Amino acid sequence: MAVYTQVSAEALSAFLNKFDVGELVSAKGIAEGVENSNYLVDTTKGRFILTLYEKRVAADDLPYFMALLDHLDGKGLAVPPAIKDRAGAEIHELEGRPACLIKFLTGVSVTTPTAAQAISAGAAMGQMHAALEDFTLTRPNSMGVESWAPLLERCGQSLDQIAPGLFDRLSNALKRIVARWPQHLPTSAVHADLFPDNVLMLGEKVTGLIDFYFACTDVRAYDLAVMHG
Amino acid sequence: MAVYTQVSAEALSAFLNKFDVGELVSAKGIAEGVENSNYLVDTTKGRFILTLYEKRVAADDLPYFMALLDHLDGKGLAVPPAIKDRAGAEIHELEGRPACLIKFLTGVSVTTPTAAQAISAGAAMGQMHAALEDFTLTRPNSMGVESWAPLLERCGQSLDQIAPGLFDRLSNALKRIVARWPQHLPTSAVHADLFPDNVLMLGEKVTGLIDFYFACTDVRAYDLAVMHG
Repeated sequence: MAVYTQVSAEALSAFLNKFDVGELVSAKGIAEGVENSNYLVDTTKGRFILTLYEKRVAADDLPYFMALLDHLDGKGLAVPPAIKDRAGAEIHELEGRPACLIKFLTGVSVTTPTAAQAISAGAAMGQMHAALEDFTLTRPNSMGVESWAPLLERCGQSLDQIAPGLFDRLSNALKRIVARWPQHLPTSAVHADLFPDNVLMLGEKVTGLIDFYFACTDVRAYDLAVMHG
Repeated sequence: MAVYTQVSAEALSAFLNKFDVGELVSAKGIAEGVENSNYLVDTTKGRFILTLYEKRVAADDLPYFMALLDHLDGKGLAVPPAIKDRAGAEIHELEGRPACLIKFLTGVSVTTPTAAQAISAGAAMGQMHAALEDFTLTRPNSMGVESWAPLLERCGQSLDQIAPGLFDRLSNALKRIVARWPQHLPTSAVHADLFPDNVLMLGEKVTGLIDFYFACTDVRAYDLAVMHG
């Protein structure tokens, strides 16, 4: 929830010159996301989000995320694809960070959705899954069930300093969960972080699904669980 | 540089209903200022800054700041006055904080002004001082020369833990400064924090002077010194 990398107006103006997006009119650092720096940027031709990716891991995965957004955008879904520069590139570098200029979407994140808003969000999730049916790139779920045992091992006996016996209790719980984990649910690319903050709405209408930086290949029920979580 | 108070979309929509500003379209917390929470708010009728004042001292001074902004706005200067609600009120409460909905100004803060930009900023400062000639409200400068001796006393001998003899050196320096402090320079309401971050520009043109929350009655040269500082 912070701007980690400062971008001067001068550097931003020079960056925007790579694109056919007009001249810089306003730029405000926005407190959005936890891992990246984001600016809301207005130009004489429109409004954009500038994202600077702060962690190296994101940089390696950016081509996957951007291809996924282009795929959904190409099918008319309300997602924020990256803007291509005059040479067709979507992934850039700015202030030493990987950076993308991204389409701005209107709408607000609802804190306590009504039934009608929840139905709209569910429908948008279903449309997204249907649109990803023929998306062929894959990415492992770095937060998926296979990652939990190594994570538990890394925490190790230090968990017992939080509460006596915690490591054993979690180890047993994890064994039960892994043994019963569903193996045959429909799998595709999923959003993997589709909680209310990442669903933009106006009234009862979904105007955007955003923040695809956990997107990966996993069971579709993963999105359903996060949305209900 | 953070959003301290979270405002839900639901609470913000209800708040905006007090004003004749249309319906909420987008809201983003912005990383601006150090003491307040700020949101960039778009409605069907325009764009605004929502500021929630986090410190009690600001609340007591808000009527002064808002009167000063109205005075400058009334004379056609590019400053961001508070929007009046349907009952004419400018100062509100939201999420337990004093809050104002403020006119949005385009422009960016320049990091390394060119000579032409510096001349424009100086001219804008001069116009502001001229426009404040007949502004009659007063407010002491809480960061002014009278505040330095009490501040030094509060720090006291603990300064010597930073560097041996530091308290004595600063005491002597302060005595010299106070003895030579100019007593007869022109005085009026001044901005008191008019450094490049608080001057919005497009190209070589000043599009706004912002962040008047240190404004006070002092010598005009104070603004000149801050702008050069």
